[in-house]
Amino acid sequence: MEFKSTEHQHIRYNPLKDEWVLVSPHRCLRPWSGQTEAAPEDQPPDPNNPLRAGALRSSGKRNPDYTSTYVFPNDFPALLEDVPEPPEPEHPLFQSAPAKGTCRVMCFHPDSTMTIPLMKVEEIEEVIDEWINQLNELGQRYTWVQIFENKGAIMGCSNPHPHCQIWASSFLPNEPRIKDRCQSEYYAKYGNSLLVDYLKQELKLKERIVLKNSEWVAIVPYWAVWPYETMLLPLNGAPQRLTDLNPAQKKGLAEIMKQLNTKYDNLFECSFPYSMGWHGAPTGPGTTRGDSPHWLLHALYLPPLLRSATIKKFMVGFEMLAQTQRDLTPEQAAKRLRDCDHLIHYKNRH
Amino acid sequence: MEFKSTEHQHIRYNPLKDEWVLVSPHRCLRPWSGQTEAAPEDQPPDPNNPLRAGALRSSGKRNPDYTSTYVFPNDFPALLEDVPEPPEPEHPLFQSAPAKGTCRVMCFHPDSTMTIPLMKVEEIEEVIDEWINQLNELGQRYTWVQIFENKGAIMGCSNPHPHCQIWASSFLPNEPRIKDRCQSEYYAKYGNSLLVDYLKQELKLKERIVLKNSEWVAIVPYWAVWPYETMLLPLNGAPQRLTDLNPAQKKGLAEIMKQLNTKYDNLFECSFPYSMGWHGAPTGPGTTRGDSPHWLLHALYLPPLLRSATIKKFMVGFEMLAQTQRDLTPEQAAKRLRDCDHLIHYKNRH
Ligand SMILES: O=P(O)(O)O[C@H]1O[C@H](CO)[C@@H](O)[C@H](O)[C@H]1O
Ligand SMILES: O=P(O)(O)O[C@H]1O[C@H](CO)[C@@H](O)[C@H](O)[C@H]1O
Repeated sequence: MEFKSTEHQHIRYNPLKDEWVLVSPHRCLRPWSGQTEAAPEDQPPDPNNPLRAGALRSSGKRNPDYTSTYVFPNDFPALLEDVPEPPEPEHPLFQSAPAKGTCRVMCFHPDSTMTIPLMKVEEIEEVIDEWINQLNELGQRYTWVQIFENKGAIMGCSNPHPHCQIWASSFLPNEPRIKDRCQSEYYAKYGNSLLVDYLKQELKLKERIVLKNSEWVAIVPYWAVWPYETMLLPLNGAPQRLTDLNPAQKKGLAEIMKQLNTKYDNLFECSFPYSMGWHGAPTGPGTTRGDSPHWLLHALYLPPLLRSATIKKFMVGFEMLAQTQRDLTPEQAAKRLRDCDHLIHYKNRH
Repeated sequence: MEFKSTEHQHIRYNPLKDEWVLVSPHRCLRPWSGQTEAAPEDQPPDPNNPLRAGALRSSGKRNPDYTSTYVFPNDFPALLEDVPEPPEPEHPLFQSAPAKGTCRVMCFHPDSTMTIPLMKVEEIEEVIDEWINQLNELGQRYTWVQIFENKGAIMGCSNPHPHCQIWASSFLPNEPRIKDRCQSEYYAKYGNSLLVDYLKQELKLKERIVLKNSEWVAIVPYWAVWPYETMLLPLNGAPQRLTDLNPAQKKGLAEIMKQLNTKYDNLFECSFPYSMGWHGAPTGPGTTRGDSPHWLLHALYLPPLLRSATIKKFMVGFEMLAQTQRDLTPEQAAKRLRDCDHLIHYKNRH
């Protein structure tokens, strides 16, 4: 029998993280009688929503009547700036180390019922501009500035108001640390950036492309773990950090974000839940523009839904203890997303 | 101010996986208004339950009227034995490799309402004996045999009937591959097994011990990621695989499993959800007893609940994109578990 990647199980290598994913496409035939989730639309807007313009937050502070984006310190931060440091470890198996940082919340829009796919391109550009401001400021002091959005109750997001978080830390967290190592090893070996080389191939192969404009492309990575995972990659100039983007790249990014999220929402006709975030070259004192040619800036969308608005992929058991496993192939996921409308959101259909 | 690990954020190193976890104990003060889960007890037994004795399964096969454990092939396996192999990779960034294997389901007990903490010690011993049988058989052909239990709807477990799964694979999955490397590097450097050395320290420090009998100890690892994560470690003879256990170790294991799970259920007075599984030296052709002195057999319990029977820890956003983060310290978790009764299950209280 001839091997067909859409039918036959195999493992695929993720060169960015030096790990493998098990692809078992025949498993899509499995019936599902397990837990279902509340449909994303069921999350009601909270009248005491602390993120809305003018709201009194639990810290006693009041939000201004903001009209665009608005950033404030997280009232329950996982990272504080000023804490005592743990002592030097005495045993190699009991090592702890200092962790300092700061956590901020960034509202995308004053309207609590808004989401990225429903926002105007110019409004999304304001989000991107504020991300860049934040990275500019926090990146001077902190080694890593993680911008991320948890969207939907299923992702532990306690508030449907459109917002993201920014956690800046004195240490380089695991995920970017591994990506930094893998990209730097590839660069040493081949003399090119791993993701620049990867992108070149993807543009040739065209199998995993979901959307493309003159500045950005949305791809389901060859090694995607989540069913409809995508990666946003810049096409021109190989920016290493968000702060490297030029006006055309910012505009193109706003456009592709709106279109990708329109596709996502149209896929299962729901406000598509995910965690998304940005990965680029580390920051902090001593780093400068252009210092990390092994890096290529990219955004990741990690959405949990598998079969419908209420059935997600559970990353449990085998996944936690052994290796992640996916049911549909990245190429099948890309095709399904390509087939979804990227211009008209299902809520705006007449 | 003096550093207190129960108050001040820090990062801790996991030497088994070469990664770090962010510990932010002050975050326990955060109020929670996000998604809650259905209480675990709400999962009703299914009258068409395909796992019960005598049931007709969707494959058309009928279960025997089994009275103890019962193993059968998973009707929707993620791994098949006989599939065509993918071609050799042509590009370093697009690598796939063959994956063969087999997936089995193992029922613990004929009674669908039974769980480990409610079973008799002798019944749990039968589970352990069958695990050993399975590893003996599958370990001859396969490099890795992952025994794991997904318990509770919240863990994607579609059937409350007491059961686990066994997935055997021709490849060494990510998690055991990394653990194999880390343990082998430690062994090369210090001449001892990493976990044997670790265990020695934990028995001295006593801060993270939850339960102990003459053969086993249950510990919240220093680097635990999940709120009430524990590890079961054997005290004597440094067994490398489940198949190395002697009769006293099997009996002691059944006892500590019952007691640990009684504590877990008593913590929030619910049938405590988790993924659990076994990690030991890899198997397959050419491996023999005692060939992996860098390994120490251990079980992992990875339970998601954080604050109550309905509020779990979400591993999303920062965790997916940067680094796992925990709210209470491993020492606090161990103390809370120590304080729970290990003899009388809340359902049997009068
Ligand atoms: O138990 P099931 O229904 O086979 O499936 C469950 O466990 C598997 C192994 O951990 C996971 O891959 C699935 O996502 C989960 O739903
Ligand atoms: O958005 P919140 O409520 O701060 O918290 C949420 O996102 C955090 C960062 O991803 C996670 O650590 C929490 O587990 C999750 O509930």
